[in-house]
Amino acid sequence: MSQASAYAAYSTDTPLAPFTFQRREPRPDDVAIDILYCGVCHSDLHFARNDWGMTRYPIVPGHEIVGRVTAVGSEVTRFQAGDLIGVGCMVDSCRECQACKDGVEQFCLEGFTMTYGSDDRQDGTFTQGGYSDSIVVSEHFVLRMPEGIDLASAGPILCAGITTYSPLKHYGVKAGHKIGVIGMGGLGHMGVKLAKALGAEVTVFTRSASKVDEAKRNGADHVVVSTDAAQMEAVAETFDFMLDTVPVQHDLNPYLASLKYDGTHILVGLLDPIEPAIEAFNLVFKRRVLAGSLIGGIEETQELLDFCAEHGITCDVEMLDIKNINEAYERMEKGDVRYRFVIDMATLKENGAS
Amino acid sequence: MSQASAYAAYSTDTPLAPFTFQRREPRPDDVAIDILYCGVCHSDLHFARNDWGMTRYPIVPGHEIVGRVTAVGSEVTRFQAGDLIGVGCMVDSCRECQACKDGVEQFCLEGFTMTYGSDDRQDGTFTQGGYSDSIVVSEHFVLRMPEGIDLASAGPILCAGITTYSPLKHYGVKAGHKIGVIGMGGLGHMGVKLAKALGAEVTVFTRSASKVDEAKRNGADHVVVSTDAAQMEAVAETFDFMLDTVPVQHDLNPYLASLKYDGTHILVGLLDPIEPAIEAFNLVFKRRVLAGSLIGGIEETQELLDFCAEHGITCDVEMLDIKNINEAYERMEKGDVRYRFVIDMATLKENGAS
Repeated sequence: MSQASAYAAYSTDTPLAPFTFQRREPRPDDVAIDILYCGVCHSDLHFARNDWGMTRYPIVPGHEIVGRVTAVGSEVTRFQAGDLIGVGCMVDSCRECQACKDGVEQFCLEGFTMTYGSDDRQDGTFTQGGYSDSIVVSEHFVLRMPEGIDLASAGPILCAGITTYSPLKHYGVKAGHKIGVIGMGGLGHMGVKLAKALGAEVTVFTRSASKVDEAKRNGADHVVVSTDAAQMEAVAETFDFMLDTVPVQHDLNPYLASLKYDGTHILVGLLDPIEPAIEAFNLVFKRRVLAGSLIGGIEETQELLDFCAEHGITCDVEMLDIKNINEAYERMEKGDVRYRFVIDMATLKENGAS
Repeated sequence: MSQASAYAAYSTDTPLAPFTFQRREPRPDDVAIDILYCGVCHSDLHFARNDWGMTRYPIVPGHEIVGRVTAVGSEVTRFQAGDLIGVGCMVDSCRECQACKDGVEQFCLEGFTMTYGSDDRQDGTFTQGGYSDSIVVSEHFVLRMPEGIDLASAGPILCAGITTYSPLKHYGVKAGHKIGVIGMGGLGHMGVKLAKALGAEVTVFTRSASKVDEAKRNGADHVVVSTDAAQMEAVAETFDFMLDTVPVQHDLNPYLASLKYDGTHILVGLLDPIEPAIEAFNLVFKRRVLAGSLIGGIEETQELLDFCAEHGITCDVEMLDIKNINEAYERMEKGDVRYRFVIDMATLKENGAS
């Protein structure tokens, strides 16, 4: 066992604060990691506040982890001390079900082990995440950082990036396709970059005319202000895909109507009941598809890291001192971040949190 | 012009009654048809009563037409007098858009010409359907009745049949797949037969335990009583597809939860707002798909007729004297038909409606 320093949520309504706990000794298939950076995902905030009713305290959030290998178990073959690696949203799965065999561990029939907030499958200990100076993870769930990738901004690729890349690949988005990206936050701005890199023509849908320039700076070919009925009418039946990153309830019908026949609307941000109600005729009359997608498998996440390195794609990040994490949560709630906070874990050591 | 005898709806709230009108002289690409049988689709009733707000009166319903060619225009190459043919829900489309080129005329960007209730694209006359002794249709929209098919029961293949067959083909349903068929009416019972013929393992979902035997007689491998929570729980995450033929609002969430990851729920009967609301997590967490589907293209409809002849698949029908059409509508509303009424058009001539 080794002592880890971290920031944890202790209850639904208190600020995150320093926390010390034990990481397990590496098992034969484990990789021990010194964490360099950890992205701050909106779901960290939901977990910290128990918005989904499944949080046990104290909990250390963080599943956009970039670090360096410090030690490996006796059976580890793919990593050695000194390697630069990443850990995303999953740290284990059953490895035997059809989903695991298919390389989509996120759909493990037994449920994957979350990087934080799950019970470890072997020893039952509670998993704690990346707002921490170290972590120990089975090598199957460790990603290799490719040459040339920017480490400080790579963490969000493991969540915001793969969440948008996986459905683009699954549904075959490619050159010649027209895709709308709804929402321009952590997920949306990665969706724009990745869809562009795959060759698609990208239109950002935003509710605010003030964001048009920003969307274009971020690489959008076109911008539609979704609150402008004339602009929405003008794009009716013109899109092959919609990548919908909005995490709060919104009316999907105007977006469905913007899809061609056989078009696909992909939900990656919404978990709530879909209200206002979808008009079934918007699906039936044009054979349109409403789909969901959840992060991506480990192999596909490695593919994405390599793709980002090859195409020079990075997440736009604001570096964060861990002592400012609570302020960052407040700003994140207001949408005041372009587009992802990343904790520089050196600040944890400087702060002497342990 | 030639005089046609028919039954028409004259207003929202009066019974269908005899009606005489003119059919056009065959144009160069037209086929003139003596109608032998016409199936009675639930949408006929909706049109007769203007439930969808688009009906102009008087209107002759009927889009499950089986007949014999009596004459052909000068440019017709595929048919000649005496041929046994069918006409389904469409009698024309723009023939130039991407959808028409793709052979999915039902998604014609200009909207297809409905067999009844549309304006003809060339002369603007109002199209009238198959509750009639004759019809004139462009050869592109005329289907050939294959050798050996039962003519009296073939009409519903052109609507109820293709509506269920097209999504099964589009989504690749095949041997080894598990499919649930929701609803056991005109669409549902064809869905069962067609999915079985494609090799799938078919489970019928019914709200009533009293229908279990009936569903099995119709070929279902298994039956789940959807109102029995334990039975629904037992099939969680076990299906590849759901073919949902229910035309009224119902909760999709228990069916979505019955799909495996990557499973597809296909709506073919519902046009209303989807309420109760779909829980987005039911799509996102398992990458499930909610899709709609609308009839099928002309080429695919011909494929289906040939498929039905080859596999001995027929629609279960109750033959109807046209003078009983209003009583049939009343019974249809109560679900009291196993599973489709078909008008024997000889009764129109015997009745001397003209």
